[in-house]
Amino acid sequence: MDVPEVVVNRLPQYVRALRQLLDNGSEIVSSQLLGQTLQMTPAQIRKDLSYFGRFGKQGRGYNVRYLVAELQDILQLDHEWNIAVVGVGRLGRAIISYPGFSPEGFKVIAAFDSDSRQVGQSIGGLIVQSMDELADTVRQKGIQIGIVAVPAAQANDVVDRITGCGIRAILNYAPVNPLVPPEVKVRNIDPVLSLQSMTYYLRPGGSGSHT
Amino acid sequence: MDVPEVVVNRLPQYVRALRQLLDNGSEIVSSQLLGQTLQMTPAQIRKDLSYFGRFGKQGRGYNVRYLVAELQDILQLDHEWNIAVVGVGRLGRAIISYPGFSPEGFKVIAAFDSDSRQVGQSIGGLIVQSMDELADTVRQKGIQIGIVAVPAAQANDVVDRITGCGIRAILNYAPVNPLVPPEVKVRNIDPVLSLQSMTYYLRPGGSGSHT
Repeated sequence: MDVPEVVVNRLPQYVRALRQLLDNGSEIVSSQLLGQTLQMTPAQIRKDLSYFGRFGKQGRGYNVRYLVAELQDILQLDHEWNIAVVGVGRLGRAIISYPGFSPEGFKVIAAFDSDSRQVGQSIGGLIVQSMDELADTVRQKGIQIGIVAVPAAQANDVVDRITGCGIRAILNYAPVNPLVPPEVKVRNIDPVLSLQSMTYYLRPGGSGSHT
Repeated sequence: MDVPEVVVNRLPQYVRALRQLLDNGSEIVSSQLLGQTLQMTPAQIRKDLSYFGRFGKQGRGYNVRYLVAELQDILQLDHEWNIAVVGVGRLGRAIISYPGFSPEGFKVIAAFDSDSRQVGQSIGGLIVQSMDELADTVRQKGIQIGIVAVPAAQANDVVDRITGCGIRAILNYAPVNPLVPPEVKVRNIDPVLSLQSMTYYLRPGGSGSHT
């Protein structure tokens, strides 16, 4: 059965919430409590999880340890994933130095820039490489994920080059929505779009209804 | 009519795509072409827009200039929004210096940190303030949006303090899903969750189906 992408997108949040519950010593969780934590309805949670099997018994709740292990397996979170960052401006440097990736198995192991003045520099222990070396490095180092941290004007070009190397997962920080082949997944990190989706609700009345 | 939040969340992407079309000289766009750009079905686009009125005529396409103006108005994008950043570590500093906010009307006008060694420092033209000054500053400067850039362990506390000042929109960079009152909107920026939602699809077969 094909799982809707919106469901897959929610699973990492489940994993994080369940890990938190385990850390706090909870071995069993109801869909009610999980729903409160995730600000979702219990029905939605039961439906999401039903795509992957029967994890809970009616009225008994979910075994937290089992569920988190299963979801981690489904999402392949116990793997190590090799990442190349393209673009080593201020944003790219912050990404390379971000301490949150490595504990989750996401290893930034290569950095690229089209600016020859950046090539050869050392950033966070990586030597910045020329874009000409992208395809060879992706193959030799087994890179499966690309992070795009270039200006908007270059982003589509860079995404094309990354997907041309066979990479099927791209985290895009440029403020564009790149077109990719259907087998490629893109997630956009765009704080401006996130802000713009909240201002709708900032009417004086505070209701958020549009009249 | 209450508009579903998922629809509101998509509108900023419409605005960006439509502005791009205008820049390229397109005055009319079909839902087919807009769908291609946004990787959505034309039916979805027509349904989303139908919440806000009749923007297009069957077979005639949308007037780009009119639609972008209407959507900007609906999302209140022609306003200026005052933002406070809480947490001035590496991430908070990058956010304060991010050049993409200001052209879209999002003005970071105050910065706060609980670390007294940070208070009084100048970052990007702002003097870092103590958390004790948060409530007064929010009121005096008309701050409507808070950006949370503190470590995970402090995030819920900071979110509570921000919402306690009457702020109803929070952009949260900490890797937690904060609980907020129903009138408060939170958008989480979390690159690890985004990466974890793609590894599901990185199976050797590449199909992404779970068996």
